[in-house]
Amino acid sequence: MTDFAGIAKQFVAHYYTTFDTDRKNLAGLYRENSMLTFESSQSLGAAGITEKLVSLPFQKVKHEYGEPDAQPTANGGIIILVTGHLVVDDESRPLAYSQSFQLCQDATGNWFVYNDIFKLVLL
Amino acid sequence: MTDFAGIAKQFVAHYYTTFDTDRKNLAGLYRENSMLTFESSQSLGAAGITEKLVSLPFQKVKHEYGEPDAQPTANGGIIILVTGHLVVDDESRPLAYSQSFQLCQDATGNWFVYNDIFKLVLL
Repeated sequence: MTDFAGIAKQFVAHYYTTFDTDRKNLAGLYRENSMLTFESSQSLGAAGITEKLVSLPFQKVKHEYGEPDAQPTANGGIIILVTGHLVVDDESRPLAYSQSFQLCQDATGNWFVYNDIFKLVLL
Repeated sequence: MTDFAGIAKQFVAHYYTTFDTDRKNLAGLYRENSMLTFESSQSLGAAGITEKLVSLPFQKVKHEYGEPDAQPTANGGIIILVTGHLVVDDESRPLAYSQSFQLCQDATGNWFVYNDIFKLVLL
């Protein structure tokens, strides 16, 4: 049986480390049919999603998050929910967010992000 | 093409209205293979999930939430992310939460909840 919780945890750590270090490198985690909904704005495909993420109006970003929750999905994927905070640039006030992913495996067995929905949580 | 955004919006309204009115009636939205992760505690199947939801330690509950975000999934399902607040019993302080669903269709075409992950957002 797939260790979906372990894969989810490893993916989330890799995703946010990459995001906070050099977010253009997230491109490798998406495919041509991947979808991103970022604050209700939609992007499609690795190139479009990377362009969106790179264009976000901050230079420095740091995500802090709790243990991700994960479940297997009907088609052999993994659904993940993460909640956390992010701090951008020199803002002192962290922003609460939640993000849901569905990971799928490509033909060579590599996991990639098929669905990605990000939303700030208003307090 | 499936109107996934419309189905998501209609589902979310129905789900929270039912939850806030008489949550044992949520049973009809789950199937035998449905999964719930509620604050990292896992339940499986319509009966187990309903038992968990009914046993939550509050009598009155009211969910307030924003427009849900939705995407189609690889197997014809719909992934949904909702963020909002809930107020329980006579608490005056709302609790921020996020919840991610994957809806799938059963053999007769009815949508049901395959994946359900609920998490309070710590502020």
